[in-house]
Amino acid sequence: MIIDCHGHYTTAPKELAAYRQTQIAGLSDPSSVPSRGTLHVSDDQIRESLENAQLRLQRERGTDVTIFSPRAAGMAHHVGNATTSLHWAQVCNELIHRCCTLYPENFVGVCQLPQSPGVAPQHCIEELERCVKDFGFVGCNLNPDPSGGYWTDPPLTDRWWYPFYEKMVELDVPAMIHVSASCNPNFHTTGGHYINGDTTAFMQLITADLFKDFPTLKFIIPHGGGAVPYHWGRYRGLAQDMGRPPLTEHLLHNVFFDTCVYHLPGIEVLLKVIPVDNILFASEMVGAVRGIDPETGHHFDDTKRYIDAIPSLSAEDRRKIFEGNARRVYSRMTTPAGRR
Amino acid sequence: MIIDCHGHYTTAPKELAAYRQTQIAGLSDPSSVPSRGTLHVSDDQIRESLENAQLRLQRERGTDVTIFSPRAAGMAHHVGNATTSLHWAQVCNELIHRCCTLYPENFVGVCQLPQSPGVAPQHCIEELERCVKDFGFVGCNLNPDPSGGYWTDPPLTDRWWYPFYEKMVELDVPAMIHVSASCNPNFHTTGGHYINGDTTAFMQLITADLFKDFPTLKFIIPHGGGAVPYHWGRYRGLAQDMGRPPLTEHLLHNVFFDTCVYHLPGIEVLLKVIPVDNILFASEMVGAVRGIDPETGHHFDDTKRYIDAIPSLSAEDRRKIFEGNARRVYSRMTTPAGRR
Repeated sequence: MIIDCHGHYTTAPKELAAYRQTQIAGLSDPSSVPSRGTLHVSDDQIRESLENAQLRLQRERGTDVTIFSPRAAGMAHHVGNATTSLHWAQVCNELIHRCCTLYPENFVGVCQLPQSPGVAPQHCIEELERCVKDFGFVGCNLNPDPSGGYWTDPPLTDRWWYPFYEKMVELDVPAMIHVSASCNPNFHTTGGHYINGDTTAFMQLITADLFKDFPTLKFIIPHGGGAVPYHWGRYRGLAQDMGRPPLTEHLLHNVFFDTCVYHLPGIEVLLKVIPVDNILFASEMVGAVRGIDPETGHHFDDTKRYIDAIPSLSAEDRRKIFEGNARRVYSRMTTPAGRR
Repeated sequence: MIIDCHGHYTTAPKELAAYRQTQIAGLSDPSSVPSRGTLHVSDDQIRESLENAQLRLQRERGTDVTIFSPRAAGMAHHVGNATTSLHWAQVCNELIHRCCTLYPENFVGVCQLPQSPGVAPQHCIEELERCVKDFGFVGCNLNPDPSGGYWTDPPLTDRWWYPFYEKMVELDVPAMIHVSASCNPNFHTTGGHYINGDTTAFMQLITADLFKDFPTLKFIIPHGGGAVPYHWGRYRGLAQDMGRPPLTEHLLHNVFFDTCVYHLPGIEVLLKVIPVDNILFASEMVGAVRGIDPETGHHFDDTKRYIDAIPSLSAEDRRKIFEGNARRVYSRMTTPAGRR
């Protein structure tokens, strides 16, 4: 079985965007009282939005299950306030739950959190619990920068985040560390802010002892770990200069990288420097890059091809990357898809 | 000849730090009138600071000339105001000039700029001209984020920067795009902010047509281009999705990467995806990582070893990376060192 641990519902029916527009319009209308409102989307609309996108691509590329979450750029935690984010996260997560219910063989849910800049992360606990306990979700996407590119909240190693980590550990769910849309003109969302968010998070973890306090906390750094594998020597060297333990001991019991790297030479260096036990297959489809690579004739984000093209991987290595590691990290994944 | 295009004066005599401390102390003293003051450092102190550091490493590693600039983290443009930055840049640049004058065979100067958050970059023209015309410097370090990690100034493609670019083009000097110290607790300076700055700058350049307006403007992206070579497929794909020309046409006449990547697998992917004409040898020594890699027994930042270890490079390729490209990009480099 092949589990893609990083898929977003980027193809949701247009009613979802309309809902969000209404929500945003309400923010600038002083007479508007924030209310959750209702999203009207039929099951057929959901089927249609998936059949010719994620489901078709799963079939074409030979992957089985996608760990599926709301569109990452759509989270936009910088918009409005904590109530705005709560309503928006609830609506998005319920839609993911419907996808997973309609296609239990194909999708396993991961939730968006109702983060808001300056609002303590324990505010997100209730929605996490609802998604895990009521919907059977297996993880969450945690935004290390709810400000959308101004980085005004404390780093991930700060006690600011600890109450939320306690709940993650209690529920045994991992977080993918994933920023959202950038509202800072310096950062292109998918080309700048996403990759910076990954690199930043990993470096924050080097400098602290978060996993001494939370030995079973698990983070996935997406987009192949940002710049980290490319600069693995730099990170090993910085850790050593700081007197930290080797990174394999210091972080790699708790930190995992996905394979959303869109060319073979990138995947090669990822597999060369990061232990195979720490790599989870992912494509981020339908996602950041939608075109076909003229150098290969295949979609940039068809990451399975790159892994298939690495001859040095043993069958057991492949099984870990494609399935075993995801089951270990997303340990609650015992849905029908998980049992197939 | 081997030219290292990225060296900072990280070993300056302690009087330089004391000067800066006095300057910073004056900022919080309402009775203090900002004045440049004087840095008292003898030639012997300068010799001593270099002989057992950069010069010894040049000899040990077999490199000849370092393109040398003030300590990047020390620029700290977020401190004080434009006058603070002007005095500090002048003092630092004059010290670099003294290094280059004492060791004309070993060092060629690149200047720090008196940037300050919210202050238009044309404020930096006078110091650039002074360094190039009076001191024979061959380039500058341009900070894309003078705020030190909050990214509050416009992106590099904004007309905000154009008057400064006009002067760079007129003088025919390139800029290394190099952030300084981070004052944002989210970003570790050398492990987070530096690499993010590189990635951010390259992505900014993808989205715009800066080099249509400035066909001869030249930028060096340090630290091996941040995350860019590792994610070369992502950047090619994003450019294509946006309808930009292929990156080789769109950016690679004007944008160059250094080799400050501290392990062989990273250098391998850099050389695999970036054309050899766009790669400039560099070590960033004495710099971000000072230790010895236990996996190799050699210093992490001894980057010449990694390039030496790539069998596929022809003699001509090596000559380009080690010397030819630096002479092309830093085209004013006709000092004695350049003529050796």
